[in-house]
Amino acid sequence: MSSLRTPAPDPEGVRALALLRSGRSFLLAGHVRPDGDCLGAEAALARVLGALGKRARILNPDPLDPRFDFLEEAATFHAYEGGPLPEHDVAVLLDINTLTRCGELGLALAAAPSKKLVVDHHVASGGDEPWWDAAFVDAEASATGLLVWRIARALEVEVDRTAATAIFTSIVTDTGWFRHSNTDAETMAVAAELVARGVEPNRLFARIFQREHPGLPRALGKLLARTEYLAGGRLALVDQPKHLADEALVDGDPVLDLLRSVGPVEVVLYLRETEAGDCRLSARSKSDFDVQALARRFGGGGHKKAAGATLEGPLERARERLIAAALEDLGARASAGADGDRR
Amino acid sequence: MSSLRTPAPDPEGVRALALLRSGRSFLLAGHVRPDGDCLGAEAALARVLGALGKRARILNPDPLDPRFDFLEEAATFHAYEGGPLPEHDVAVLLDINTLTRCGELGLALAAAPSKKLVVDHHVASGGDEPWWDAAFVDAEASATGLLVWRIARALEVEVDRTAATAIFTSIVTDTGWFRHSNTDAETMAVAAELVARGVEPNRLFARIFQREHPGLPRALGKLLARTEYLAGGRLALVDQPKHLADEALVDGDPVLDLLRSVGPVEVVLYLRETEAGDCRLSARSKSDFDVQALARRFGGGGHKKAAGATLEGPLERARERLIAAALEDLGARASAGADGDRR
Repeated sequence: MSSLRTPAPDPEGVRALALLRSGRSFLLAGHVRPDGDCLGAEAALARVLGALGKRARILNPDPLDPRFDFLEEAATFHAYEGGPLPEHDVAVLLDINTLTRCGELGLALAAAPSKKLVVDHHVASGGDEPWWDAAFVDAEASATGLLVWRIARALEVEVDRTAATAIFTSIVTDTGWFRHSNTDAETMAVAAELVARGVEPNRLFARIFQREHPGLPRALGKLLARTEYLAGGRLALVDQPKHLADEALVDGDPVLDLLRSVGPVEVVLYLRETEAGDCRLSARSKSDFDVQALARRFGGGGHKKAAGATLEGPLERARERLIAAALEDLGARASAGADGDRR
Repeated sequence: MSSLRTPAPDPEGVRALALLRSGRSFLLAGHVRPDGDCLGAEAALARVLGALGKRARILNPDPLDPRFDFLEEAATFHAYEGGPLPEHDVAVLLDINTLTRCGELGLALAAAPSKKLVVDHHVASGGDEPWWDAAFVDAEASATGLLVWRIARALEVEVDRTAATAIFTSIVTDTGWFRHSNTDAETMAVAAELVARGVEPNRLFARIFQREHPGLPRALGKLLARTEYLAGGRLALVDQPKHLADEALVDGDPVLDLLRSVGPVEVVLYLRETEAGDCRLSARSKSDFDVQALARRFGGGGHKKAAGATLEGPLERARERLIAAALEDLGARASAGADGDRR
């Protein structure tokens, strides 16, 4: 039925495939606090290499997030605790293109005599000389797991249900379950192939996204009562003083998603006072308002649509500075004639 | 890339295609309070028939939900206000197989001399003699819009961006944005084809699902504060007394989705006291607990995973009866050895 084709790899990608074919023992590594894309890509590549009779060991700077424990069906996840690296002839860095985001593990990898291979969908951070021997990179790909799918096809390895589940996990993590703007036709077509191989989206959704703490509804309820609108409702803000900290609020996603669902809201700011007295900002954009630029004003960063920063406390003072900066950015954008809604 | 094929129509489906080919003037009709699947399928079929040079007019028992106003790019939606029907030689009923769910419009259609065609993915309600001349029905299809895709392919009509957007709307409505268990490989593959034709999932998500009332966060916060867990956390209940009614709470989805995201929760019950003093129940299941059976005890109905009913007030009394029934069903299920989590 489909007229969709997998893009052919560039010359560097061809070199990467040759390295995957010739290597015998692989170390797969990701970034600090590895997310579902990183972990899923690692698990799937380990499975693909295993099918080719090669050894593949996953080693990350941090342990496996229990949310993704089902990926252990595909491979074992190890966390680096210092010391010498396991023997390997090729190190594959997934969902990352700079060793500085690997913590201590990055230093150990840099010192290792192994060949280095990068599999990634991020834009390479400028400045650095390429430190890798080969790279399978496409900054247009929605997820690193999608690149592992392309690799499996190129190496003519059949993707089984276990590998398919891992790739699907990558894709849904980085596309926000097919809702973000990176959800392109290839992404959907590959997802179709993965479902045909036995992935059950509803069960995976429950495994990853429906395991919140029973305290979440009440904790979230208290936060939502603090919703403030500014700039005629285009800006939504929730601040969380220290005393509202709650183990059920492990991340900001529920409050951020909910405020984003409000029609006129373009920008969502969630500001949490920490035990230490700093204030952690999570910012999201629904329009072309650039929250990365806003976060950068406070020494933070991220993407245009999702960014974060840490502001100096106390909360009331951080809140004032944040609002002033956000309103300034919104005003500058309005006078420049930008209009995210009409695009 | 894909090995996925569109299923071939059965003999009745072949007759349905013949009727679509031979007819010249069509009346497309849906059910009361038409949802995104019904509306999207109507819009897409109107577009397909238009491409074949045929006249197609959409007439529903109720007006277009403003959430789906972008579908007007494909076709105009009319609401039936009584009186004679517009002239037509074929009436197509979409997302429905019984005229009793069409209100007054159903009576007018039954009396009309036109040929009747059903395009639907529901199991036919038993008892009734078939009242249609032809049917394009597949109870396994995730959405009626998917059937319109198959029809367009069979009639060799190219699906343009406008029709693709309408079919995508159908699919995401009935699969809960690719999260429900009906999200199969064909659904994903067709979605890929639709994205290849210009559908932008992120923009459509914002259009349909990110237009909540600014009062939603606070209204929802008040409801979440009332969360109760029963049966060791497997059952979550929120009751809403009359005085918490709020125009921002147009439907129960935000509260139902949120309670369902809690790990141990299997069943969510949301009970709203109406102005008249009745209590509207919305029930959702995450396991194989059958909320339809629960709703039926109170004269309601729906599906195994999503159902509703109206209970007699006052709220406190309705709540007690509901809890007793739900605990009984949970207990019966436990003693029968059923286990939705392990399945």
